[in-house]
Amino acid sequence: MNEKAIVLLSGGLDSTTVLAIAQHEGFELHTLSFDYGQRHQREVDAAKAVARYYVVGHQQTVKIDLRAFGGSALTADIAVPHNKAARQISYDIPITYVPARNTIFLSFALAYAEVMGANNIFIGINAIDYSGYPDCRPAFLKAYEGMANLATKAAVQEGRVFRFHAPLLYMTKADIIRKGTELGVPYELTWSCYEGGEAACGTCDSCVLRLNGFAEAGRKDPIRYASLANQL
Amino acid sequence: MNEKAIVLLSGGLDSTTVLAIAQHEGFELHTLSFDYGQRHQREVDAAKAVARYYVVGHQQTVKIDLRAFGGSALTADIAVPHNKAARQISYDIPITYVPARNTIFLSFALAYAEVMGANNIFIGINAIDYSGYPDCRPAFLKAYEGMANLATKAAVQEGRVFRFHAPLLYMTKADIIRKGTELGVPYELTWSCYEGGEAACGTCDSCVLRLNGFAEAGRKDPIRYASLANQL
Repeated sequence: MNEKAIVLLSGGLDSTTVLAIAQHEGFELHTLSFDYGQRHQREVDAAKAVARYYVVGHQQTVKIDLRAFGGSALTADIAVPHNKAARQISYDIPITYVPARNTIFLSFALAYAEVMGANNIFIGINAIDYSGYPDCRPAFLKAYEGMANLATKAAVQEGRVFRFHAPLLYMTKADIIRKGTELGVPYELTWSCYEGGEAACGTCDSCVLRLNGFAEAGRKDPIRYASLANQL
Repeated sequence: MNEKAIVLLSGGLDSTTVLAIAQHEGFELHTLSFDYGQRHQREVDAAKAVARYYVVGHQQTVKIDLRAFGGSALTADIAVPHNKAARQISYDIPITYVPARNTIFLSFALAYAEVMGANNIFIGINAIDYSGYPDCRPAFLKAYEGMANLATKAAVQEGRVFRFHAPLLYMTKADIIRKGTELGVPYELTWSCYEGGEAACGTCDSCVLRLNGFAEAGRKDPIRYASLANQL
């Protein structure tokens, strides 16, 4: 019997590639998605479509209201950044940062993993194109893993060891796309845009990062864009 | 200006005493409560009453659905333990354990603290009467604090240091009641019972622990009980 894995799945390019990698590594797949008061349902729908494509065992969506805490362009009434923010050389953490988001996501994943009998948790964090999010760094994930193995009945009483996998940690967006293409990832089902229109906007930070990644990987992005003016 | 603190407030005896301690230490109080698919609203209502009593700055209640993960008598359709479970000498973790509960609670508290500009987080965990919950141990809290200080923009970019306070960690239930009485805690507003009736049942693990604590402290518990057959 294959070992079980919980894969955090947003429906974006990164987490979908992570799901393909976990499948390739032979894990029995279960997914966890969040509906956290995003500006649109597109992301949630994409996660469901991807989970269906990969025929995962159990697909869990948890609704959490991060808007109660505000503080981010992704959850509050702040405009999402277009163009300039992505282009400027800056070590500032962008306003799309959601306070403690990955900490909260991983905590639900830990609960879910404990109940499902899964010892492996996959997350698509990335330390290269991570836009300066503190909770996308290796040091954060290592500390989280240490904490998790002190936090649960599974670890403390049953001797289970939780392992947190971040296979994209040191990959560029182009690397991720090359790897995903090799594994047959259905990128047409994924959604990365911060806006929620019919077509991706093509100009928000997330679209620009994605389009640049496809260009660098020498591939055509299969999703539809409203504007490609900013594609490199 | 006083330093801000986020106090995790369930409306029970322990967390209400923690709120009084944080007030006594001079913190500006803000509370965070959870509605996590408990069997009853009594606990949520008690938290609100206590927050009103202490005139906290901001009182946040976050609804999270832990029932999706099952695995506990407190969130799933499993009978809560009465009498025997509390009386037997056992190092087993009881079935009222909720997978990764404190990890999830602290993660929301961290997000809330970051947004509110609070560097102090108070939680009523206890390593003496903790019933064997792994996420009530000092080692867990220490690991959580280390992780939290790598997880947020506040810590990484602004140099803020989050401190997690667990003032009840080494206190018995009787110690907690003595301390709270000294600080004038309105125990009549608190609710500890696992059941959700008009009066506390007096026989569940939580009631028995509470009643024994009051007896040992030589105080009368001001709340009403349906049955006191098991009071020592």
